[in-house]
Amino acid sequence: MEKLTTRELKDRLGELQGQEVELKGWIRNHRKQKNMGFIDFFDGTCFRNPQVVYDEHIEDFAGIQALRVGSAVRVTGRVVPSYKDPETPEIQATSVVLEGDCPEDYPLQPKRHTLEFLREIAYLRPRTRVFQAVFRVRSVAAMAIHTYFQDRGYVYVHTPLITGNDAEGAGNTFTVTTLPPEEQGDPSKDFFGKATSLAVTGQLEGETFAMAFSNIYTFGPTFRAENSNTKTHAAEFWMIEPEIAFCDLEQLMSLEEDFLKAIVSYVMERCPDELKFLDQFTGGGLLDKLTALRDSHFARVTHEEAITILRKAMENGTEFKFEPVYGGDTAKEHEKYLTEEYFHSPVFIYDWPKEIKAFYMYQNEDGKTVRGVDLLVPGAGELMGGSQREHRYDLLEKRMDEMGISKEDMYWYLNLRKFGGCVHAGFGMGFERLLIYLTGVENIRDVIPYYRTPMSCDF
Amino acid sequence: MEKLTTRELKDRLGELQGQEVELKGWIRNHRKQKNMGFIDFFDGTCFRNPQVVYDEHIEDFAGIQALRVGSAVRVTGRVVPSYKDPETPEIQATSVVLEGDCPEDYPLQPKRHTLEFLREIAYLRPRTRVFQAVFRVRSVAAMAIHTYFQDRGYVYVHTPLITGNDAEGAGNTFTVTTLPPEEQGDPSKDFFGKATSLAVTGQLEGETFAMAFSNIYTFGPTFRAENSNTKTHAAEFWMIEPEIAFCDLEQLMSLEEDFLKAIVSYVMERCPDELKFLDQFTGGGLLDKLTALRDSHFARVTHEEAITILRKAMENGTEFKFEPVYGGDTAKEHEKYLTEEYFHSPVFIYDWPKEIKAFYMYQNEDGKTVRGVDLLVPGAGELMGGSQREHRYDLLEKRMDEMGISKEDMYWYLNLRKFGGCVHAGFGMGFERLLIYLTGVENIRDVIPYYRTPMSCDF
Repeated sequence: MEKLTTRELKDRLGELQGQEVELKGWIRNHRKQKNMGFIDFFDGTCFRNPQVVYDEHIEDFAGIQALRVGSAVRVTGRVVPSYKDPETPEIQATSVVLEGDCPEDYPLQPKRHTLEFLREIAYLRPRTRVFQAVFRVRSVAAMAIHTYFQDRGYVYVHTPLITGNDAEGAGNTFTVTTLPPEEQGDPSKDFFGKATSLAVTGQLEGETFAMAFSNIYTFGPTFRAENSNTKTHAAEFWMIEPEIAFCDLEQLMSLEEDFLKAIVSYVMERCPDELKFLDQFTGGGLLDKLTALRDSHFARVTHEEAITILRKAMENGTEFKFEPVYGGDTAKEHEKYLTEEYFHSPVFIYDWPKEIKAFYMYQNEDGKTVRGVDLLVPGAGELMGGSQREHRYDLLEKRMDEMGISKEDMYWYLNLRKFGGCVHAGFGMGFERLLIYLTGVENIRDVIPYYRTPMSCDF
Repeated sequence: MEKLTTRELKDRLGELQGQEVELKGWIRNHRKQKNMGFIDFFDGTCFRNPQVVYDEHIEDFAGIQALRVGSAVRVTGRVVPSYKDPETPEIQATSVVLEGDCPEDYPLQPKRHTLEFLREIAYLRPRTRVFQAVFRVRSVAAMAIHTYFQDRGYVYVHTPLITGNDAEGAGNTFTVTTLPPEEQGDPSKDFFGKATSLAVTGQLEGETFAMAFSNIYTFGPTFRAENSNTKTHAAEFWMIEPEIAFCDLEQLMSLEEDFLKAIVSYVMERCPDELKFLDQFTGGGLLDKLTALRDSHFARVTHEEAITILRKAMENGTEFKFEPVYGGDTAKEHEKYLTEEYFHSPVFIYDWPKEIKAFYMYQNEDGKTVRGVDLLVPGAGELMGGSQREHRYDLLEKRMDEMGISKEDMYWYLNLRKFGGCVHAGFGMGFERLLIYLTGVENIRDVIPYYRTPMSCDF
């Protein structure tokens, strides 16, 4: 008798018809009739779960009927044609053995729980259908990203999490220390002999590797100690930051477009059942949205052109809460208009006013703009942010001076421009933002196994 | 004219013979003769680098001869048969254009630098041959691990880095805070409303996902604030921690063996040039060692049997600094004897004395030992540590009491044993320890892009 996972059962369903098999997993639901019973069985390896049917001729019928939701069981039985639909496996059980019991007060009863309630029992929620779908998609999307870059020869770089740099000059970082509070006045006594914090980006270290391997990517955690309780902010999240030597802004946009379409395709191919469920769970439209993105052509406009479009829309009666201004940032409502009303596609906005972008972006000849680019997508807003990097030593130095960034601390970053520097570019994408897009789930707390947000660090 | 990476050039060398191509990269070495010159060119996409040859007929011969080591250049030329060996590409240049200059005092001159010196210029060392090999192997090994688990349906889980648990009851953790020192007395005022630290393991959260997906793995950073300056300790390193439901200790050992052999095979197949170089660089024996591991059968002995073997060896004249004792831990010299002298293969030691192992390991009926297992490999010592987990609520509770681990904080971990618990097991492997093994490089500082060790947090 073959011991199988439900994934193997589903993949080999035709061949296994009539065979005896053994499965191990849990009871999601258990419906009982006088002479038979139906167990919704899952082991988490497959979203398409088999139904286990037993009748009164089974040994210990009464004992089996007493099995509770949440219990771990070992099922043996024959694979039979399903009443429901031909692709959902069904097992006519010859035995159901209890592996691990579950009490009556098990919090995950077979009814619809709110996502808010499920956050309180985050250690159990992966057993629900919605989180079986979400966290499978998370895993498959991570693999999609690795596969994309590795197939193209990129080197995966683990940039450091504990850092002595304050890379974006930002603040909003977590302090890392081993000193008791009373000794923290002297960082030279600390573990690393200096003040350290958790990294907000791996880009700058990533650039050092791009200057050696040409094509690299990072995929690791980053941290923001931002005290904002929104649906899209977490204190700990994962980022993907590719960096490419001999690549300019145009080539970067082409890479971003190709990359995003490839990830979406990969997940759609490998998680059809999960996405179908999430489509229904989130009210419909998810699959259409993903299909549209995969098949679309991404528009490209300068920031100035984008503002012109927005201002014309305003003149023609579109109401914005915030006025779109040349030289200023765009608001969510503007992004929504551009992607959903005007272009009906993802949009790259590039050549941003330098005042509102980071110090390392390549400065255009107009003296006003930098070669930064944001990718906006319908239904999600900004998904990626990238730029061609300033590779001219003197211009970078001047900009660091203007923005008060320490050239002493960042000597190595500046030196990349002195030792065989070259045109290069890269982008960053928050992994959870991608997952919100891929799953249709709205809150970042529901796409992270154990989220960290202000006042919340459980499990 | 085709624009290529050196990887494409190498992969398509036969087909490209006689063609004009363009390459972009850096000058590793530049040898000049009166009427010609030779550039060792690299772009980091391939370890087998082309030689670029030019002669006095090239435009701006004098300018090209003046190009310095470390400069970024764009080379165009014809692919020609190589003098050296048929698999190393050679380009007869028609132009060499400077993309980014490099000064005479560039620290990476074409001579052998010590690894210690290269650590001081860690932002440049990925450009050297040894680190081109090491960090390519690091990237490929990471992909090997993802591929292994994803091909088998495992779910990749990102466990949290900032944690309120002190999982191993260990101490030696980094404090994470946003409070100034004078306010740290009251953790309720801190960002998360409680005291938090950096995670030393993701295992316990991993178990919660194994109880939902059956087969999961983590692959992420972990942290130890251990003040030890050794070749094998870093404060920040990456760990792989698979967790498998319905898996006992025997099955776990089989998985570990299959996994390790698969990773070694994957890297050997994809990095032959890198490993060949590292074999020579580290004094020979690396490829033999990896081949032997891949083709070996891993021995399995209990801790008691291992001690018996060691004590017999001692009686027969083998000298140990530390006496092997029943009930005690093994020393490096013991591990070396077992793998290299006695078994001549990797060895699993299982059923350890419970006093020297973690609280969560399954307790054997003898009342003395637990179902923990260490994998020792020749030339590296302990590479993986795993166990069947204690899934019996009452026994786990008792052990937590005995070891002073808070049942209140860890209620969710205990509850896994109440809500459909089952036999399960998992192991942990330090990624850098694997890399030391795979590359032959001795010091953990040389397999991490930017290492963090006591008093050292640069770049």
